[in-house]
Amino acid sequence: MLFQVEMTVKLPPSMPAEQAAEIKATEKAYAQELQRSGKWRHLWRVAGSYANVSIFDVEDNAELQEIISNLPLFPYMEISVKPLCRHPSSIREDDS
Amino acid sequence: MLFQVEMTVKLPPSMPAEQAAEIKATEKAYAQELQRSGKWRHLWRVAGSYANVSIFDVEDNAELQEIISNLPLFPYMEISVKPLCRHPSSIREDDS
Amino acid sequence: MLFQVEMTVKLPPSMPAEQAAEIKATEKAYAQELQRSGKWRHLWRVAGSYANVSIFDVEDNAELQEIISNLPLFPYMEISVKPLCRHPSSIREDDS
Amino acid sequence: MLFQVEMTVKLPPSMPAEQAAEIKATEKAYAQELQRSGKWRHLWRVAGSYANVSIFDVEDNAELQEIISNLPLFPYMEISVKPLCRHPSSIREDDS
Amino acid sequence: MLFQVEMTVKLPPSMPAEQAAEIKATEKAYAQELQRSGKWRHLWRVAGSYANVSIFDVEDNAELQEIISNLPLFPYMEISVKPLCRHPSSIREDDS
Amino acid sequence: MLFQVEMTVKLPPSMPAEQAAEIKATEKAYAQELQRSGKWRHLWRVAGSYANVSIFDVEDNAELQEIISNLPLFPYMEISVKPLCRHPSSIREDDS
Amino acid sequence: MLFQVEMTVKLPPSMPAEQAAEIKATEKAYAQELQRSGKWRHLWRVAGSYANVSIFDVEDNAELQEIISNLPLFPYMEISVKPLCRHPSSIREDDS
Amino acid sequence: MLFQVEMTVKLPPSMPAEQAAEIKATEKAYAQELQRSGKWRHLWRVAGSYANVSIFDVEDNAELQEIISNLPLFPYMEISVKPLCRHPSSIREDDS
Amino acid sequence: MLFQVEMTVKLPPSMPAEQAAEIKATEKAYAQELQRSGKWRHLWRVAGSYANVSIFDVEDNAELQEIISNLPLFPYMEISVKPLCRHPSSIREDDS
Amino acid sequence: MLFQVEMTVKLPPSMPAEQAAEIKATEKAYAQELQRSGKWRHLWRVAGSYANVSIFDVEDNAELQEIISNLPLFPYMEISVKPLCRHPSSIREDDS
Repeated sequence: MLFQVEMTVKLPPSMPAEQAAEIKATEKAYAQELQRSGKWRHLWRVAGSYANVSIFDVEDNAELQEIISNLPLFPYMEISVKPLCRHPSSIREDDS
Repeated sequence: MLFQVEMTVKLPPSMPAEQAAEIKATEKAYAQELQRSGKWRHLWRVAGSYANVSIFDVEDNAELQEIISNLPLFPYMEISVKPLCRHPSSIREDDS
Repeated sequence: MLFQVEMTVKLPPSMPAEQAAEIKATEKAYAQELQRSGKWRHLWRVAGSYANVSIFDVEDNAELQEIISNLPLFPYMEISVKPLCRHPSSIREDDS
Repeated sequence: MLFQVEMTVKLPPSMPAEQAAEIKATEKAYAQELQRSGKWRHLWRVAGSYANVSIFDVEDNAELQEIISNLPLFPYMEISVKPLCRHPSSIREDDS
Repeated sequence: MLFQVEMTVKLPPSMPAEQAAEIKATEKAYAQELQRSGKWRHLWRVAGSYANVSIFDVEDNAELQEIISNLPLFPYMEISVKPLCRHPSSIREDDS
Repeated sequence: MLFQVEMTVKLPPSMPAEQAAEIKATEKAYAQELQRSGKWRHLWRVAGSYANVSIFDVEDNAELQEIISNLPLFPYMEISVKPLCRHPSSIREDDS
Repeated sequence: MLFQVEMTVKLPPSMPAEQAAEIKATEKAYAQELQRSGKWRHLWRVAGSYANVSIFDVEDNAELQEIISNLPLFPYMEISVKPLCRHPSSIREDDS
Repeated sequence: MLFQVEMTVKLPPSMPAEQAAEIKATEKAYAQELQRSGKWRHLWRVAGSYANVSIFDVEDNAELQEIISNLPLFPYMEISVKPLCRHPSSIREDDS
Repeated sequence: MLFQVEMTVKLPPSMPAEQAAEIKATEKAYAQELQRSGKWRHLWRVAGSYANVSIFDVEDNAELQEIISNLPLFPYMEISVKPLCRHPSSIREDDS
Repeated sequence: MLFQVEMTVKLPPSMPAEQAAEIKATEKAYAQELQRSGKWRHLWRVAGSYANVSIFDVEDNAELQEIISNLPLFPYMEISVKPLCRHPSSIREDDS
């Protein structure tokens, strides 16, 4: 089941550079693991911003919540979620 | 080059059902042709709405404009556009 | 799987009273059938408005889309959707 | 009498982790006590966020204010309130 | 139990003057009856607008909904509702 | 002359509890003095929030400004102001 | 007593040109009469728009409402009102 | 003197195709004449929309108002205006 | 050439009282000097707020920028700017 | 390929003056280098604000992202991006 998720990162200016770097490194590892597992199906940068557009493929709402709330950057992001499904004009038979 | 495009359809209530059906049929054919050509890479329905989330893969801004402004539903849609590029945490080497 | 859905009805002033009455009657029958099936778990009026707050219990995003897009009032409503799941402070073991 | 309440938690980044943990623990105990008493009828997590959708069943506006303003997280939340009542299309005879 | 209600009237420009006059006359009679009964405790015009600020004193949310949804101008108004209660700094012992 | 004023308090999380308590006590005394003088005609809590709805009865705009800008909580509030006058459907002869 | 009023004109596209011309002529005569009386102290066009910024000098809120609600374009304008008073840094002794 | 102007065209769906075509042709001729005169310095399409970003070079606010209010599409556009001037980091000595 | 400028002051709560007082005193002297020179034509307080409505009379956009960006409170204000010109219904021959 | 980018600078009040000066100097040098290379085609100040309107000419979305995310002020700016292309009414044959 697919969800489009948009995340905008807002790090507090007072955060020490080291701490920011560490959070970002952990975030990257976590994001790549989820991509390899197929849960985080697409991850794009929005050009000109510190934001991304993502497509998640999860079992249900609970799994979406578990994945997103465990993102190391979760406390520092504005996040919007849209549930997706197959479009009647899609040429594919599934939701890809 | 990728763009995320969100389209929300707002047909005027006064439009005759036949006219609406014809526009939608033309739109569907046009959308499927663009999907087969690879220009309209993804097309998802936003669940609970008359809206879609799409990913376009075009040569440049001018081609994006040409494709979108020729959509039969173009005069009846609210459209937002976000330029995308590869995310530094993506596990892929291109923007897919 | 639960979704909170808020619907605000905006009937065009030009709609004939008979047509409006018919749409509302069909909507009511459809809504009651979905409540009896358990899909439309809760349906409340927002006091002082022509709007409702609803809780849907569906298989997945696609079923939510199917149910909502078939509402007779669908073309005349502003609709917002929020995916829900069990809250860690809930005293219940499921999402009720 | 029912109210839908949506709460979004915004903890200041400068709050020490211990203090945050203590507030959350007190909040959880308080929320569970109110659920057991029937005042906090439903409590759901909004998937992909640090927010909840709740249904309160209170005597009147004053009791709603008393309950919400005593939440330990009250100073750190954005809160919206909607008064609810039975919907004319509900299949139930009360507001459940 | 008190509610603050703000109503902004948006009559469609196409409504015939006679029909508008009739709706307004009915609205006025209805509003005055509710004021005399004590349900519509205050009614003020917002200067420079076609809007009012009102204070309703009702039994519960259901009665608020019944009163407001029966306003002859109801289909033509944007309405916002805020539940009120006694303020801890009020010098009165009730909510007046 | 009447004004409806809505005030939402946003105390900075870093304010020491003692300082907050002192400001609130001064605010309460000041608000009660203004109520007794008839300038602050109504003061209600908005249920579920740290906000109030107030009706001021002042000589002119300048007096409104003097009263509000001297509120001890003034630097910590979001404030909106609406000028009011007698509504043509009011059953009273003055603006009460 | 001064008020800043901003008015944006939104004539419905369906209004016949003659009717629009007549309303505008009446509006102009009315606006000029009010300027000559000193009630409409300033009237400026916002460059690049069908909108104005105005300063009214009236006895009280009720007179402001009477003047504005009698504007021939009143049903076709979005209007915002701000009460003004002398600024403590003004070099003038009155509110001019 | 420069102004950035953004215009979004919203033609009413009920406008006959011939009338729309005529307005657009007149608009195009007028826009090109202003470009040749140097008043309309830049004119770009916003990709994926029926909107443009423009830079005007005019004598003063009054000339900007005269040019924009005479656009044939003026009654059908949402328009925003930003006054511009030379940026201190610009490598040019004028505002080009 | 006229501009309407609205300024809302948002001093950070952490600013020491002395520093705030000094900035305000400098601001006042600067504002009065500009008023005496005729550049700052009108300056009004918005009643019930820490905001002003101002009319500036400047040579061009660059002078407006120079004046406003040199306000001592500039880093602590939200500022909106509207270019003004003579209204066709004004009874004056200039923009006063 | 052109993009319009609007940037509003929001430096935290707590940033030491020296650090702010250093960031601004680096930003200026970087902006001028990009202007000389032709990538940053136009750079204008929005009069009355700490903001700019810019036109970038880049190879693709990825280059836009690289340029903007490397701006020394990037962490302290609100940024909006609009993809541009030649307008059908432009008198030029390219996008200049």
